[in-house]
Amino acid sequence: MSNLNGSDSPKIHVETPPVAPSAPSEGHHAAASGGIGGILRRWKREDLIKRGSLGLRGIALLFCLISFIIMASNKHGDWREFDKYEEYRYLLAIAILSSLYTGAQAFRQIQELSTAKQLLQPRMAAMIDFFGDQIIAYLLISSASSAIPMTNRMREGADNIFTDSSAAAISMSIFAFLCLAVSALISGYKLSTQPYI
Amino acid sequence: MSNLNGSDSPKIHVETPPVAPSAPSEGHHAAASGGIGGILRRWKREDLIKRGSLGLRGIALLFCLISFIIMASNKHGDWREFDKYEEYRYLLAIAILSSLYTGAQAFRQIQELSTAKQLLQPRMAAMIDFFGDQIIAYLLISSASSAIPMTNRMREGADNIFTDSSAAAISMSIFAFLCLAVSALISGYKLSTQPYI
Repeated sequence: MSNLNGSDSPKIHVETPPVAPSAPSEGHHAAASGGIGGILRRWKREDLIKRGSLGLRGIALLFCLISFIIMASNKHGDWREFDKYEEYRYLLAIAILSSLYTGAQAFRQIQELSTAKQLLQPRMAAMIDFFGDQIIAYLLISSASSAIPMTNRMREGADNIFTDSSAAAISMSIFAFLCLAVSALISGYKLSTQPYI
Repeated sequence: MSNLNGSDSPKIHVETPPVAPSAPSEGHHAAASGGIGGILRRWKREDLIKRGSLGLRGIALLFCLISFIIMASNKHGDWREFDKYEEYRYLLAIAILSSLYTGAQAFRQIQELSTAKQLLQPRMAAMIDFFGDQIIAYLLISSASSAIPMTNRMREGADNIFTDSSAAAISMSIFAFLCLAVSALISGYKLSTQPYI
């Protein structure tokens, strides 16, 4: 995934495989005219990745927030209160945590896009992105799967506003998980293009 | 993470950041004598990564197998049979699946180490490694967390051989998850050092 388009001059030949040009068919003997196009393509791709990553985090934030709000307002008296079940408390806690995480990341990314100034060192930011996304994705899938069996069993008996809200909150957590799993892949790509690691 | 130690000659200067030498303090003006050392270091590191990845998969295979065996033999009559609960059936299914996956991967890696011949194209293998590890890790954490709440609740009432075996199988699945999560990170690194992506 590492690429420095058009940065290797035609004169040097190295034993180790050269860093990839964007199109495999070009080979690594990039002509001087292809060099500028390569750099432009690289910039365009990096911009696309930056925006895509921001978009995914934004969508994940939305899903987490919806999950959090639905679950937090899921109190309908008697046995139909979310805080009587540890699975739902866990789901709520993880929804809050991931809202905070994705919110903070999206805020940082928007600020970096608008002011073109890096808040963190790029390498540090890439590491935080990669590990953070993975950990939050693991937490989200874990909380969703812990809440699913009980909800299933409840819905076999009775289908009311409480079980429906729980199911909705779980679905939102799963959607947020999907967004963050893709975001973790993108962060892995960004980490791999960092120099000096 | 991309690195071609000592492969860039002192004469060329490029706008884009150069690929990383192993020690940041060296800068990218590697002396000719440092070039061979760099390549040797790179080989040593790649060998270490290959062995580390194989070791992690081996340990994960062990944990998955133990989890699978404990859960499959967890039948003690009456309500104490694992196949009466969907969570335990799910755990068993995922334990079998991940045993097969880690077993196949470890087999492939051992064969590649002993015959020094690649069964798959390196780029294809790196992609399969990366996505496979991530997906299996997500499945393992999902199955373990879905089985935990019910086991917890059962153990509040009665603590017998059935609940103890379930808890043991769950723990083994979680250990296997940890191994595969680290293995996914290593696969991400390997993917990032693939040329032509």
